[in-house]
Amino acid sequence: MEKKPLDQLTAAEIGAALKETKAAYDAFQAKKLSLNMARGKPGPEQLDITMPLLAALPADADPHSESGDDCRNYGLLSGITEAKKLFADILGANPDEVLVGGNSSLELMFACMQISYVKGIAGCTPWSRLDEVKFLCPVPGYDRHFAITEYFGVKMIPVPTDENGPDMATVKQYVESDASVKGIWCVPIYANPSGIVYSDDTVRAFAALKPAAKDFRIYWDNAYCIHHLAADPKKPLTINQACAEAGSEGLFYQFASTSKITFPGAGVAVMNTAKANLDEISKHLGVQTIGYDKLNMLRHVRFFGNADNMRAHMEKHRAILVPKFAAVLDMLEQEIAPLGIGTWTKPEGGYFVSFNAPKGTAKRIVQLCKEAGVTLTGAGATYPYKNDPDDSNIRIAPTYPSPAELKQAMELFCICVKLAALEKLA
Amino acid sequence: MEKKPLDQLTAAEIGAALKETKAAYDAFQAKKLSLNMARGKPGPEQLDITMPLLAALPADADPHSESGDDCRNYGLLSGITEAKKLFADILGANPDEVLVGGNSSLELMFACMQISYVKGIAGCTPWSRLDEVKFLCPVPGYDRHFAITEYFGVKMIPVPTDENGPDMATVKQYVESDASVKGIWCVPIYANPSGIVYSDDTVRAFAALKPAAKDFRIYWDNAYCIHHLAADPKKPLTINQACAEAGSEGLFYQFASTSKITFPGAGVAVMNTAKANLDEISKHLGVQTIGYDKLNMLRHVRFFGNADNMRAHMEKHRAILVPKFAAVLDMLEQEIAPLGIGTWTKPEGGYFVSFNAPKGTAKRIVQLCKEAGVTLTGAGATYPYKNDPDDSNIRIAPTYPSPAELKQAMELFCICVKLAALEKLA
Repeated sequence: MEKKPLDQLTAAEIGAALKETKAAYDAFQAKKLSLNMARGKPGPEQLDITMPLLAALPADADPHSESGDDCRNYGLLSGITEAKKLFADILGANPDEVLVGGNSSLELMFACMQISYVKGIAGCTPWSRLDEVKFLCPVPGYDRHFAITEYFGVKMIPVPTDENGPDMATVKQYVESDASVKGIWCVPIYANPSGIVYSDDTVRAFAALKPAAKDFRIYWDNAYCIHHLAADPKKPLTINQACAEAGSEGLFYQFASTSKITFPGAGVAVMNTAKANLDEISKHLGVQTIGYDKLNMLRHVRFFGNADNMRAHMEKHRAILVPKFAAVLDMLEQEIAPLGIGTWTKPEGGYFVSFNAPKGTAKRIVQLCKEAGVTLTGAGATYPYKNDPDDSNIRIAPTYPSPAELKQAMELFCICVKLAALEKLA
Repeated sequence: MEKKPLDQLTAAEIGAALKETKAAYDAFQAKKLSLNMARGKPGPEQLDITMPLLAALPADADPHSESGDDCRNYGLLSGITEAKKLFADILGANPDEVLVGGNSSLELMFACMQISYVKGIAGCTPWSRLDEVKFLCPVPGYDRHFAITEYFGVKMIPVPTDENGPDMATVKQYVESDASVKGIWCVPIYANPSGIVYSDDTVRAFAALKPAAKDFRIYWDNAYCIHHLAADPKKPLTINQACAEAGSEGLFYQFASTSKITFPGAGVAVMNTAKANLDEISKHLGVQTIGYDKLNMLRHVRFFGNADNMRAHMEKHRAILVPKFAAVLDMLEQEIAPLGIGTWTKPEGGYFVSFNAPKGTAKRIVQLCKEAGVTLTGAGATYPYKNDPDDSNIRIAPTYPSPAELKQAMELFCICVKLAALEKLA
């Protein structure tokens, strides 16, 4: 099959290309692959580099924190001081404004929304008693954010995103005029799935918001804050600094975790917000738990020592991930670019490549891949209610498969993109 | 001060005893103690016996579960199979009906109530949309259960308890006639704080309930299931067996954890209920977390190997705790029994001695102790809304202080009980 834009093909050429591509697809099906590129999971070789963490708290360890508290016992709902300091350094936050939680930042995000829903925050009516509550959802975005929002019956409003972040004129319009808009989901650094880094102007525009609702909060999910792929990463303005400059310190809840720094199943999650917010959230969190796993916090602190060592650890991840992302991007460049049937991001960090297929073909591509043994994130998953109006966006997660598997999976992916495009043209 | 029943004292004797007891109290205040008997916290020597757990998953460990899953990575919301088996053995449950969670069983209880409140279970209306929801609360009971219930605005109805458990006639009457009664809190083995073990008849009566509400559940908090103080512990009927015999398998949510087996801050929690219930709960839990800490599950499984070894581990706790409970009981027997100013439990397991002071003196006793440097659980805490109608019950937690501290604290406690009783008589 000649590599030229598909829209320049004659009907006869389309027929021939379709036949040829179908044959290539059938050949792949015969291989009976079973590969998964659905989730942003680290690969085993990434997990291996963190194994020494397990020895950082041996049987003869001193189980006490800096403050002298016994980390084996109950207590210290907001976590141990040294873990707060470590994360505060990473996030550009004040340690007093940090709560170190369990193994899941998603759980902390859920808890925040649950508290607003059940109890209400900042003296406002609990959302459960309001007729309508809305959340802004920059798209494409993270399906688990959308699932939490849908769980609480909160209406999701998609907001378009460009290379600088969400369209801030739209955000401002909603947030400042509609008191039923209670929040917005943001992944400010290496966004899931687009990989974009919010520009400093965007961060400043967030900090400058004057919400109509007193209980509006920016859910700032900084999941990939130090997860660079570029050798010389951008140094974006932090939400802490922007809000401090704007005098809007209480505007955001920031989240992060070591899920993709140490272990996804056994890392440490963190939340950062203004002291008054944190005190209010903590009062409610104290009803649902006596405290989080402080030994795992201590294990992490003793393993890393400081934030610079944590950043250095990320270089090891980078060394593993750069070739994987390159494999995906090279294949797309080689197989798809000449045909003019797709655009995609070239992320400088994070866990995803966001691929935009010709309108109306994403579901078909994911189905074709599935039927040939490669599972992708469901088409539409990157939109609220799984509704991608263009049926175009597909999230590619290159991190988990081995390089050899990734090559196969991407070969198949490119065949499926072509096949779906040709089917549509035929 | 002569040791005879205070109600036989003359007015003059009361005056003299008051003076003498006040002097003893003042002498204690001068010691400037700072001791805490407020919470059921294991003592440091109990935590020390579990330190080898930290070495059970070394840096060169195979991080895979029996099923071949990598415990370091995302996935397996309900936990790893071998951990389910371990807890199933302890609880007399089917491993398929077990979910292994994070470090907090309280968090799982909260999640269950949250799901009923926000989403509704078994096809029933979410509690947030009902005018009234009630929970039965056997008293005295556990303050953190009551706090969760109050959080969701659920009305708490105290139910009296005797040495066999809650008054089942009252329970049956409420549960079978009132569809707004959605649950009951139970600590069936070594109840918090009374230490009682529900009789087999009581467990059968629970299993035989025919609730008016389809979404009624028994919250069976088996926190102290293997936490024996007696050498030859009772073997009570399990809720699983009772409900299997009664054909009421979906009636209960059972909870437990290793908080007081390994580490309170870094243990593993567990939930057990009929498969259909567990599937429904899991679907909702999957919105709030991707999964719990599987490496800590693996660490626990490799440390214990099997349930018998876990039971053997509890013997080490027993050896530490028996003298502490004896110290408390001996002191009460010696100082309070002759005066006829209190009754108390002599638990065969668990973490508490439940003390009933003369009516109207519990708050005063706790205050007196506090002002002399010994913190007790707040008077009233063992009742819903912190409202002990008799102002009588005080929960004594002997586990955390050292034996020497415990002796001092109990000396002071007895002085305060006497002082409060005498003040009332004077």
